[in-house]
Amino acid sequence: MTLIEMGQAAKVASSQLAVAGAAQKDAALRAAADALEQGEPMLLEANRKDVQAAEAARMRPAMLDRLTLDHTRISNMADGMRQVAAQEDPIGQVIEGRNLPNGLEIRRVRVPLGVIGIIFEARPNVTADAAALCLKAGNAVILRGGKEAIHSNTVCADLMRGAVEKTGLPRDCIQLVQDTSRSSSTGMMQMTGYLDVLIPRGGRGLIQSVVQNAKVPVIQTGAGNCHVYVDDSADIEMAANIVDNAKTSRPSVCNAMETLLVHQDIAEKALPVIGARLLEKHVELRGCPRTRAILGTDKVVPATEADWATEYDDYILAIKVVDSLEQALTHIAKYSTGHSECIVTRNYRNARIFQQRVDSAAVYVNASTRFTDGGEFGLGAEIGISTQKLHARGPMGVNQLTSTKFLVMGDGQVRA
Amino acid sequence: MTLIEMGQAAKVASSQLAVAGAAQKDAALRAAADALEQGEPMLLEANRKDVQAAEAARMRPAMLDRLTLDHTRISNMADGMRQVAAQEDPIGQVIEGRNLPNGLEIRRVRVPLGVIGIIFEARPNVTADAAALCLKAGNAVILRGGKEAIHSNTVCADLMRGAVEKTGLPRDCIQLVQDTSRSSSTGMMQMTGYLDVLIPRGGRGLIQSVVQNAKVPVIQTGAGNCHVYVDDSADIEMAANIVDNAKTSRPSVCNAMETLLVHQDIAEKALPVIGARLLEKHVELRGCPRTRAILGTDKVVPATEADWATEYDDYILAIKVVDSLEQALTHIAKYSTGHSECIVTRNYRNARIFQQRVDSAAVYVNASTRFTDGGEFGLGAEIGISTQKLHARGPMGVNQLTSTKFLVMGDGQVRA
Repeated sequence: MTLIEMGQAAKVASSQLAVAGAAQKDAALRAAADALEQGEPMLLEANRKDVQAAEAARMRPAMLDRLTLDHTRISNMADGMRQVAAQEDPIGQVIEGRNLPNGLEIRRVRVPLGVIGIIFEARPNVTADAAALCLKAGNAVILRGGKEAIHSNTVCADLMRGAVEKTGLPRDCIQLVQDTSRSSSTGMMQMTGYLDVLIPRGGRGLIQSVVQNAKVPVIQTGAGNCHVYVDDSADIEMAANIVDNAKTSRPSVCNAMETLLVHQDIAEKALPVIGARLLEKHVELRGCPRTRAILGTDKVVPATEADWATEYDDYILAIKVVDSLEQALTHIAKYSTGHSECIVTRNYRNARIFQQRVDSAAVYVNASTRFTDGGEFGLGAEIGISTQKLHARGPMGVNQLTSTKFLVMGDGQVRA
Repeated sequence: MTLIEMGQAAKVASSQLAVAGAAQKDAALRAAADALEQGEPMLLEANRKDVQAAEAARMRPAMLDRLTLDHTRISNMADGMRQVAAQEDPIGQVIEGRNLPNGLEIRRVRVPLGVIGIIFEARPNVTADAAALCLKAGNAVILRGGKEAIHSNTVCADLMRGAVEKTGLPRDCIQLVQDTSRSSSTGMMQMTGYLDVLIPRGGRGLIQSVVQNAKVPVIQTGAGNCHVYVDDSADIEMAANIVDNAKTSRPSVCNAMETLLVHQDIAEKALPVIGARLLEKHVELRGCPRTRAILGTDKVVPATEADWATEYDDYILAIKVVDSLEQALTHIAKYSTGHSECIVTRNYRNARIFQQRVDSAAVYVNASTRFTDGGEFGLGAEIGISTQKLHARGPMGVNQLTSTKFLVMGDGQVRA
């Protein structure tokens, strides 16, 4: 099938899905979850092929780990789909409404976006996660995964498609692109008229390529150069806890912190406490001259201009001593990707200024940036963290996979 | 100034504007409105230059009319700005919020988008309208109007910039691109990192060019191939009133209807009534064979395939007799641009089916499509009618020129 044929099939499926009731969609999701568990032997066999090919191609261990499925991970994929099924159905919710003086009744109601394209890298669990969220919100989805996971993704998609069809919804609600060459990725970016939105999930290179080349609407996710600023009035122990958690609890994810900013009036007291905690966990520190003077030039590598702009996703932290809150805000405005930033402070006024002026999806006072997550925020499962401002910002759950339309009821009104 | 310099200036201005209070923004808008009125002689003189050049270039009368300013139109521009000032301020509104079990307090609040680009054609009033809506929502705006209105637009922008600055906000909240060559238009489409959204306002050619070429996020507006479907149970007099209003009250606008669909069981009775009303107003009718058989081949030109897809914006109407509601829905799904569609019916079930299944920004029962308008819907002034599904759909007012961010307050929480 060509991409255009897939787009046509998705449009047909989406028009049926758009009018399906919550009960029918949830039944399809639960059936798909069951199918993944019942299909475990097939899924594991397909995954073995992917893993063997990846090993032969000397894939990095972290990537290889993400690619590998086992019983627990398959159960988790199925449970994730069941959790999405258990969430409230967003479709048909009345967002606002009023009666006009001329007697017209207007309601703005939540409707599906239509057809969603997702380009992702070598994580087969994304196939199930993304399909579940799209289907819950009444959207058909066209998935294009990396070639490294093609066998796993194919079996996963087939199992879900079969299950969905048995519950009476079209199997083309979920489609997987079989061609994993660059041309299929580029092709999806050009599917004007077929894709209502394209969401890239993966590394910076993938996302930038999609943003630069797509002719369809795109939502950028997952760029996270996150900052923690330790204000002069901060509780130093609290600051150390937050920095430790934000940096080391899971360094590879987008809500992990990358740069620490410390007010000069607290730096001499705070940096040794924070630095000791990080060095204990083998975090490489890259600091400005003042940081190096305080912590020792043997313990801190000199930070370069590039460090302030780098999302390490690793056990590395950039540290800068700043003169003031104002300088911290300027630094963040210049280097942040707009994901998550935190101020640690006891000062009420500075807390307010920081939350007002930092232009990021999530702005924290005295809490770890690692909370930026649909589940943690109580929004349910998420398809990614949007770092753009159009349509969705921050954790994107089912509500962010919807649009709205106006329904207007009258009895013959015409406009004067 | 280059576009990039304008983008940098806009970013600086937008960061000041983002934290300006409602009172300050409203004062700036009222000052700008006063400045337009006080600057009327300068504005009229500049407009005279544009009009003379347009006349020399033999601009079409309808375009020339839109280009021309007079006392009343300038007053209307100023009053429009004052009305926007009087609207509720969207910034800082709490959209949702909750306390988490771990004690974190989360609020999702409305914030400005940042910097908005607008490319528009030869209507100088757009300069004032667009600037007012963007500023109200806390956004800096970069306006790029057509070369035909450059003198008028320049004076209009200068008057507003001076007034805004006097009230203490940066004049670069509003900027006008002086270069009106194609390259400035293309340049704006490439301002990644500077424009949070680009909104083209104008004809189909402009909008398609922006959608095809922009690397920044775009909102499509104003494509309106709108349909009215007359169901077999319709009140014929009501149908004639609605069709007459939807077609002839202002044929050049995007919410005017372009195609009439009539159920075969009512066509012989309804079409003569509707056709007579339209022919009286000199509407050219282009019909399917059944329409021509009923109304007379002398009165109805044969409709071609192209007619179903055409937005005439003129005194022309395509008419098709359909076998069923289902066939009407299929026709609309194939040809509609997703703007506004209407069913005229007495049948409760058909009304519901039509509203559920038609995938357009506004779906009417028994009312004219001409109501799709921010003012008519009670949403305040609008910057356009979005016909896409991402971010905004239907009339876009100040709320649609905003984003949101999450504010999270804690007392040392870290993620487990």
